[in-house]
Amino acid sequence: MTPSVDALAAGIRSGDRRSLARAITLVESTRDDDQALAAALLDDLVADAGGALRVGITGSPGVGKSTFIEAFGLHLVDEGHEVAVLAVDPSSQRTGGSILGDKTRMPGLASSPHAFIRPSPSGASLGGVARRTREALTLCEAFGHDVVIVETVGAGQAEGTVADLVDVFVLLVGPGGGDDLQGIKRGIMELADVVVVTKADGDLAGTARHTAADYRHALELLRPKAGADTAPVLACSSVARSGIAEVAATVVRLRSDWAASGRLAELRAGQATAWMWHDVEARLGDALRRSGGVRALAPELEARVADGSLSPTTAARRLVDAFWAETRGAPD
Amino acid sequence: MTPSVDALAAGIRSGDRRSLARAITLVESTRDDDQALAAALLDDLVADAGGALRVGITGSPGVGKSTFIEAFGLHLVDEGHEVAVLAVDPSSQRTGGSILGDKTRMPGLASSPHAFIRPSPSGASLGGVARRTREALTLCEAFGHDVVIVETVGAGQAEGTVADLVDVFVLLVGPGGGDDLQGIKRGIMELADVVVVTKADGDLAGTARHTAADYRHALELLRPKAGADTAPVLACSSVARSGIAEVAATVVRLRSDWAASGRLAELRAGQATAWMWHDVEARLGDALRRSGGVRALAPELEARVADGSLSPTTAARRLVDAFWAETRGAPD
Repeated sequence: MTPSVDALAAGIRSGDRRSLARAITLVESTRDDDQALAAALLDDLVADAGGALRVGITGSPGVGKSTFIEAFGLHLVDEGHEVAVLAVDPSSQRTGGSILGDKTRMPGLASSPHAFIRPSPSGASLGGVARRTREALTLCEAFGHDVVIVETVGAGQAEGTVADLVDVFVLLVGPGGGDDLQGIKRGIMELADVVVVTKADGDLAGTARHTAADYRHALELLRPKAGADTAPVLACSSVARSGIAEVAATVVRLRSDWAASGRLAELRAGQATAWMWHDVEARLGDALRRSGGVRALAPELEARVADGSLSPTTAARRLVDAFWAETRGAPD
Repeated sequence: MTPSVDALAAGIRSGDRRSLARAITLVESTRDDDQALAAALLDDLVADAGGALRVGITGSPGVGKSTFIEAFGLHLVDEGHEVAVLAVDPSSQRTGGSILGDKTRMPGLASSPHAFIRPSPSGASLGGVARRTREALTLCEAFGHDVVIVETVGAGQAEGTVADLVDVFVLLVGPGGGDDLQGIKRGIMELADVVVVTKADGDLAGTARHTAADYRHALELLRPKAGADTAPVLACSSVARSGIAEVAATVVRLRSDWAASGRLAELRAGQATAWMWHDVEARLGDALRRSGGVRALAPELEARVADGSLSPTTAARRLVDAFWAETRGAPD
């Protein structure tokens, strides 16, 4: 049985990990009554949130994301931080449960009393994962985590969404350049606040340095404004634990510069209001897609729009008309 | 007085430029009765559309966009094409009327019987401009234009929207590299199917060649997949008319390759259905923002979400609840 909202809120404020885990399960639930409880809990805790350094980390499979997060997170724990890791993977269908997977791939963090790892909820859409992650982040901040790492797989639509959740967005790339961006979505590079070349050790140390210089040059060329800052490019080795402290110091410095300049407050206010309107649209869209009239019409209209025999505008008007007729409970 | 839908459709099919201009004015109108006529007209003509090569062209102010489009458009006219130029500029507030402006900045195209220039509608939102441009494009295709150039200013949100309207997206950059990307939005570079370095003449010819090589290197590094095609990078001079034929040939070749491989049909079907759902959401969003209950609530909720005292999810639920209560004509 789920404890009451008051008990969960008190548990989270007192630093009880089990309350935090249960509260995240509650926000992940799609049941209407759970959603109402989750909303009440978030309303209670929202004023306690906002204090963490929120770091997004992305990179394609094979780039060494897990070992990087393990090294980066443990470094932050050693410096006295309380670290949460939230995974965002809308395609997550790992067999055997992803909790085991996440605990295995980050063993040091998984066993640290100062770290909390939460895998991606399975079976949810990107919108659902994004909402849960935004809410879990609030819960972790209220709990007392002062660093929240949001990890994404780097292969899909999720990166833009994660960039809209965090203060600093870190892109991991492998040594060797372009080939290691295989699978990375167009536009990710330009979302990055910091680029980190991984595996800068042993035989690959020279290649990694070279790759970092290449990225520096490419980002300089692509910078949005003359004179504007470009994303720092660093190299590190998660295995040798070299360069990790520099990455952490860079992320912390960017965030504190932005806090001092007002950019952080502006960024977060913009993220929150954008999310509010985004959520409004998603709720309206959900209601529309649940409508029987829309479901009856949509397949044929979509096919005709795709083959060019019907204008998208007309199809949209018909769908919305069908929705209004049903919502108002009367033919139009 | 506006002619009937049948008369406009017949006029457009017979190649009457005045009918085309009037029809575009009709689709730009925000009056409900005009919108109904525009919808009927588009439904009548949509089966005649789809035949043009749709080219998006963007670049920041000062890059020589007008002189490039003039040279590029006249080259296509010389090759026997019928060319339309549609401008997309949601911020357009040019004094004296932008028609005069567009005709002055592209005098050769403006006086050609084989070219049609239509400036951006003024005072419309990006969504409004995008809808009008998509519909004007349909009208131009039904009229018989086999090349439609969609021009955007390169400084805002419009580029992604234009990329979703066209077959081939061309980014113009000035010689000298990064400094000329001033004002270009993050992510534009990676939307480009072709990059063209302008002003490759006189003293700048060497710099332009160098810049083109730099972009080739940067794009190679940023390509989404190993082995995937990278955007061709060309250099041209609009004044000396050198390199223009190569740009045109490259655009035509890309489009015909994509037509042969099925990528074009897939791209367009995806663009059209995405637009349908986008338009559905926009219509729902418009209805919500017009709602008195929402308008009364939104400012306070938005302020509380921005300052972190209310969760965005809760604010969204309250806005949607207020909207449903009003739509259903009953308190919830």
